[in-house]
Amino acid sequence: MNTAEEVHDFVNKGHEQYLPHLSIDCVIFGYHERQLKILLIQHHGHEEWMLPGGFIQRHETLTEAAYRILAYKTGISDLFLQQFYTFGDSAARLNRIAIQQIHNKTYAKVGVTLDENHWLAERTLSIGYYALVDYSNVVVRPEFLVDEYAWRDISDIPALQYDHNEIIDKALLTLRAQLYQQPIGSNLLPEKFTLPEVHDLYETILGRRFDRRNFRKKLLALGLIRQLNEQRKIGPHRSPNLYEFDLDNYHRALNEGAALVL
Amino acid sequence: MNTAEEVHDFVNKGHEQYLPHLSIDCVIFGYHERQLKILLIQHHGHEEWMLPGGFIQRHETLTEAAYRILAYKTGISDLFLQQFYTFGDSAARLNRIAIQQIHNKTYAKVGVTLDENHWLAERTLSIGYYALVDYSNVVVRPEFLVDEYAWRDISDIPALQYDHNEIIDKALLTLRAQLYQQPIGSNLLPEKFTLPEVHDLYETILGRRFDRRNFRKKLLALGLIRQLNEQRKIGPHRSPNLYEFDLDNYHRALNEGAALVL
Repeated sequence: MNTAEEVHDFVNKGHEQYLPHLSIDCVIFGYHERQLKILLIQHHGHEEWMLPGGFIQRHETLTEAAYRILAYKTGISDLFLQQFYTFGDSAARLNRIAIQQIHNKTYAKVGVTLDENHWLAERTLSIGYYALVDYSNVVVRPEFLVDEYAWRDISDIPALQYDHNEIIDKALLTLRAQLYQQPIGSNLLPEKFTLPEVHDLYETILGRRFDRRNFRKKLLALGLIRQLNEQRKIGPHRSPNLYEFDLDNYHRALNEGAALVL
Repeated sequence: MNTAEEVHDFVNKGHEQYLPHLSIDCVIFGYHERQLKILLIQHHGHEEWMLPGGFIQRHETLTEAAYRILAYKTGISDLFLQQFYTFGDSAARLNRIAIQQIHNKTYAKVGVTLDENHWLAERTLSIGYYALVDYSNVVVRPEFLVDEYAWRDISDIPALQYDHNEIIDKALLTLRAQLYQQPIGSNLLPEKFTLPEVHDLYETILGRRFDRRNFRKKLLALGLIRQLNEQRKIGPHRSPNLYEFDLDNYHRALNEGAALVL
């Protein structure tokens, strides 16, 4: 929403356009040179930060909604989004009055107060999606009710609105587990990359150190990467070997279920 | 629901008790002696089979709802349920008239016809949960609107209601991938098991054959199982070695993210 009028329309007539009780929250992981960050937003009137998110239109599919919200909130489109979990257990999601108060702080900017039967004050379950991008390529688009955007390092996430810390924890666990099942790094590294590049990526995402020689051996043995008969020339005496993700192998593994391992 | 009166109450006043637009569907995998089956139900008035499922009460958490539904529909409680995906893309979920017709066939048994604005005819997204049990231990509880129950082999699943075939496909992929990350077999095998027992379980769930010696080597190398200094006496000249799942290792891996592999 970009104007006060659009906000009024959303508050007053949003239930005609959107499904109640359901939202989508996006965990956008941003990777760049050994750093892993998450995109957070701060709504008007709030100290607390939160994840970007939105509602599902009555006539669009769930997947369409996730991509629309991501594009609208961040200016990012054409990005691999992955649904990872639906959140409906937190006490914060059952406390109607607390939810109403959070909304009222935000909508005070346009002089709106929700009554307790308002559709936005209803209990809402949230479907979590994550994506992984190079944050140096992202230009976030401003929005009317959002005061601030920030990329925060995963080791430095503050206490967030609702159950968004729990959503981030689960997204990070899923990202780490799927690093062995899906070519998650393929949109972060050049098509042909060096061993230090993929090693840095894995160390950063997994938050652990790996011996470089064992790492190479294991990634090759698991069929995750393939060594090319090519080098990158980066200096008169430095021409490291190049590797690529073995996408056929990933694809087969996904269809057969974890065939990468056994 | 066990009586016509309960069904009437549900149809007429269910929206006061349950959240609209959301349901839970359960994929109950049953394993027994090299067979992997799924529990299906057939509602009154329908040729098609479907998965057991239900709605979320307004004041219970999502996890509570999943366990309540499983216990109510199948008589199974105290079982590990795993949420795996939320389904909201299928065209069948957007077709209000088709949904209304499906419900009307079922509720004809109690002389009820839904009008097109009825809460049960609304678009509904479904949150999928799966569980894995020894089906020889399960006694399914009959219900008023359910005519038949059946355990169907995963290679022999008929065309199901709504998008339930898609839900099963995704559940099976998830089960197979998680077989390397979670001690999924631990409630199906005795605490101490033989190599042929765990080998059969993995072959059946993954739908593939493994050379027994390589399988043992890989499972030990991955830290999934641990060999015990114990044998099971099954005959005068047959005392196979016993193994157990390495639960500490699984637990650590889940917290650190796929540490089982690297």
